[in-house]
Parts: sequence; structure tokens; C-alpha cells
Amino acid sequence: MGNDIVDTDLFEAYLLGHPFTGKPVNLYNAMNYIMQLGGKRMRPKLLLLAYHSVKGELDQEALKLALAIETFHNFSLVHDDIMDNAPIRRGKKTVHEEWDQSTAILAGDNLLIKAYQLILDTNYACKDQLLKAYTKMSAQVCDGQQMDMNLPKQSQITEAEYLQMIQLKTAVLPAVALQMGALAAGANEAVCNAFYDFGLHLGMAFQLQDDYLDAFGSAQDIGKQEGGDIIENKRTILLLHALQHLKGADLNQLQNLIDQAPADDAFKISTVRQLMKQAGSDQHLLQLKHVYETSAHQFLDIACPEPQQQAGLLSLFEGLKTRVY
Amino acid sequence: MGNDIVDTDLFEAYLLGHPFTGKPVNLYNAMNYIMQLGGKRMRPKLLLLAYHSVKGELDQEALKLALAIETFHNFSLVHDDIMDNAPIRRGKKTVHEEWDQSTAILAGDNLLIKAYQLILDTNYACKDQLLKAYTKMSAQVCDGQQMDMNLPKQSQITEAEYLQMIQLKTAVLPAVALQMGALAAGANEAVCNAFYDFGLHLGMAFQLQDDYLDAFGSAQDIGKQEGGDIIENKRTILLLHALQHLKGADLNQLQNLIDQAPADDAFKISTVRQLMKQAGSDQHLLQLKHVYETSAHQFLDIACPEPQQQAGLLSLFEGLKTRVY
Repeated sequence: MGNDIVDTDLFEAYLLGHPFTGKPVNLYNAMNYIMQLGGKRMRPKLLLLAYHSVKGELDQEALKLALAIETFHNFSLVHDDIMDNAPIRRGKKTVHEEWDQSTAILAGDNLLIKAYQLILDTNYACKDQLLKAYTKMSAQVCDGQQMDMNLPKQSQITEAEYLQMIQLKTAVLPAVALQMGALAAGANEAVCNAFYDFGLHLGMAFQLQDDYLDAFGSAQDIGKQEGGDIIENKRTILLLHALQHLKGADLNQLQNLIDQAPADDAFKISTVRQLMKQAGSDQHLLQLKHVYETSAHQFLDIACPEPQQQAGLLSLFEGLKTRVY
Repeated sequence: MGNDIVDTDLFEAYLLGHPFTGKPVNLYNAMNYIMQLGGKRMRPKLLLLAYHSVKGELDQEALKLALAIETFHNFSLVHDDIMDNAPIRRGKKTVHEEWDQSTAILAGDNLLIKAYQLILDTNYACKDQLLKAYTKMSAQVCDGQQMDMNLPKQSQITEAEYLQMIQLKTAVLPAVALQMGALAAGANEAVCNAFYDFGLHLGMAFQLQDDYLDAFGSAQDIGKQEGGDIIENKRTILLLHALQHLKGADLNQLQNLIDQAPADDAFKISTVRQLMKQAGSDQHLLQLKHVYETSAHQFLDIACPEPQQQAGLLSLFEGLKTRVY
């Protein structure tokens, strides 16, 4: 967790110690396979840090809630990988590749259900509120994923639509993780809401950083092929901005690079990068990201004003600035 | 509902009056499309009848619970249709055909989540119990569906394994619908359990009846191509029994019909039917079905002993004996 409040391996050990059990074996193997593929565990850690900052300690019930959040995240990964036809996740085969599509659909479904079972298994007095916040977020993540799937088919997308999509698809989950942690620990409504807003803005900054690194980071920085979004003509905020702000020959050149898919990827990447910079799209993105970061800091000051309590949450926040995939 | 206690159109009107609303539009259209395709609405009706038999009246909260159960059922239909590659459901295109596979996956996911939202929206004091029973059932339905998907790859299947599969895949849902209806209406544990067991055994009898009709019913009886399971070599309890009890030349003939897929479907159907009858497989199925029916009757006597209260539930039960698809 990169800080002294919660030991880094605490959640990972809890997850490994609580695999899902049941029959048929292949279904449960698929569920545990994705859960144990690793990853940053950012969302459950956010929940635990919020819980700790309110209550001053952690317990088994909080770890159970954190596992529910990570289980939901893994449900979405399994189903998204089917939709994206992705062969690899964290260096290993995706569930639909290692097993088959039907097993992947059912493993995702069952992870979604098991996340509810974990929350229902806790004995918090505010369980009804926890479940309602969690359920609202779950539906929003589905809405956001559908919006993302709809993007290539839409003739026009506004920046506001793009930002709404990433908010639903990626930012409401860390927001609710923090809110649930605070709620379960007994925080009042103002603090719970501030944690939610902190997570929402942090999540937005995170996603914008992702878009930036994908376009401008080196393969070494991001641990995957560079310029992937550019090659696929993915309509990120950078491309939307460039298309809207370039004019004349520059706009034509960008449109041609999108329509004609040149054989030389390196040429396409460097030219599109240059055009984006010319349009000021990179600066626009960094400015937006800065706004979200600043708001996140302000909400954090409300959520947990004690400097010591902020340390853990800020360590994740600091990581954002130099984030490598 | 085929009885005087609950008006037939009551649930249908409630469902049509409470469509899911949200964005993006295509996702919510897909969700409402499958919900409004019609069907017998057996599961929500069972919930309402159990509720009514305990409480003597119905209310909006009970209808909300019934809608949750129907929503879950529709989630499973949408995902099962993807897995089965089914083009048609109730005479209309399936969701993945009318939209696309990604939308169908997300529509199913969101229906699963909306079912939780409906239950969470009720104000029953026993909500935690309702959610726990519902969640346990949901995971079991996924387990059962995976077992069904595994069947063709398994070299040997016992009758017990087949019965366990249909119990999870199809019988636990009506069982929990009845249990939730009784629970929400304030019935004691013994009555709730008796309703559950009534539904479980009724569900088993239903599925066995389905298997029987698919093999021996005429196209006119069942409203679809006759002998579908036989043509596809589906390992129902009939085929499992016949393979286990035929000997010598008869067994060879059945095995050849399975392995070689003769071009003449009518010949295959009539010959397999004959061999199944020779093995006594049809009688074996009907005997099993009778056992489940008898137990269901006995549990119903415990669940609601008043002859008048039994009427509604028995009307669904009577329908079973002459059931046409």
C-alpha cells in the first residue's frame, strides 16, 4: 500500500486466503484465476484506507467489504475482455481464452453475485446503505461500458459525453469504494460524501493520465505497445479535441490518417502526436487533469483533515503523477 | 393466473408500468425488450400466490419483489441465449441478434443488478433474509448453467448428476420465488421452508415433463420442432437411462444413431423413441416425475393447508399435467 498505515500484503493475503469454493470446478477455477492474477488492488486498498482513516483500525469485516469491491472489479474485467476480444490480461490468457466464452460469461455473472454475498455476509448496521450505494455504482459501470461500446458507432461525440462515459466506466468504482469504507467505519454523511467526491475526481484524473500516457508515453513507460489508441483511432479526449480544433490542411491530414490506416504505425503515431500537440490537445488534457487533481485534494481535506491520516491516501495519489502501467 | 385470487393481468400490468429507465438508450431498450417479450410469468406468479396465501392480500411491495424475480429470470435468458447461440426467443429475435453480443452481455449484467435494486427498494423488515436467499439461489443458477454447458464434454454422467444440474438450473428459482413470497408476507420458518420445497419439487417435475414432451410430444403439442433433444443427442435423463439399460445390438444401434447423425431426422427420432421405450426410459422418467409431484403436494399441504388457499397454486400445478409449451 506504499505507506505505514496498512501493510501492503494484508489485502492480497486475505484474498488468497478466501478463494471462492463450489462446483462445477471449472467455473470456480475460472473465477479464482482472474481474482488471483494480481494487479494493483487499488480499489480495495482505497476502501481500507478510508475505513482506517475513520476508525483508526482495520478488521475482518472491512477486508470482506474490500474483497467484494475487488470481486466486482474482476467481474467487469472478465466481461469487458469478452467484449474487447482481448487475448491477454496481466501477461496471462484472459478467461474466455483459457476456458471458453460461456464459462467466461458465467464466471463474470457469478463474481457479480459473490460480491453481493460478501457484502451480505458482513454485520454492519448500515448494510442496507452499503448495498444501495454499491448497487447504484454497479449499474453505472454497466451504463458506462455500454457508452464506451457505442462510441465507435456515434457520428459525433462531445467532450462532455466522453467525460461522462469515463466517469461511469472508471471513476464511480473508486469513489464508492472510499464511500463504503467510510460508511462502514461509521463516518457521518458529509465525510462519506467527501470521500466519494475525492475518489470520483481522483478516478477522472487517473483515466485522463491513462489517455495521455497511451498517446505520448514510450513503450517502456507504459509496459505495452506505444500509441495503441492512436493506431486504433480510439476516440479519446485527445482525438476529440484535435478533430475539433485543427483546421484546413492539418484537419485533412488527421482525417486521412484516421480513414486510411497507413501501413507504417510509427509514422502514424508520430504524425498524430504532432497534430495533437499543434491543436493543444495534450495541454488541454493536462489542464483538465490538473483541475480534477486539485478538486480531489480539496475533497480529501474535508474527508480526512489529519495530515497523518491523509498520508496513505496521498501515497496512491502521488503514484498517479509518475504512474507506469 | 388461472384462478380467482390474483387477477391474471395484475403482474403483467405492473411490469409494463415499471420499465427500466436510464442511458444509454440502446442498453435500456434491450433490457425492456426481453422483459416485455411475454411468457408465462410463472415465477413472479408463484411469489405472489405464496404471499397472498400467507397474508390474504397483495400490495405494491409484493409486486416489486415479483418483478425482481422476473428480472433475474430474464437476465438468465439473455445470457443463456448467447451461450446457446439461439436466434429466436418467444418468436422474436434474441437480444444478441436484435442488438449485438456486447449489448446482450451488458443488458444481462444490468438486469441482474436491477433485480437487486428492486429488492433493496422494498421496506420489508426481513430484507436481509430475502437478499440472502435470493443471492444463494442466483449463484446456484449459474452453477447449474455451467454444469449444463459441461455435459457434452463429460464422458460419463450419472442420473444423480443430471438431476442435480436441473435442480440448480431450473428448480431453485421457483422454489426461492415461493419462499420469498412467504417470507415477505411474514410466514414462519417452517411455512417458508415448505413453500421452498414445494417449489423445488414442482420445478423438478416441470423439467422432467419438459424432457418427456421434447422427446415424445408432437410438434403440435410442444409448439416447436419435435424430437429436438433427440436430434441434438442431448443427454437428458431419457438418453442417459437408455444408454445404461440397453444391451447388445440395441445399445449398438442407439450408439450408432448418436455417432453417425443420420440425414433422415424422422427416422432417427422414431428409432430412438422406440429404443427408449424398449429400455423403459419413458416409464422411468414418468415414475420420477410422479415422485416429485407427490412430494410437491405433500409440501404444499404443510405450506398452506387451507383448501381455498391451495387453489391458486394448484391451478399452476394442474397445468403441469397437460402442459403445452
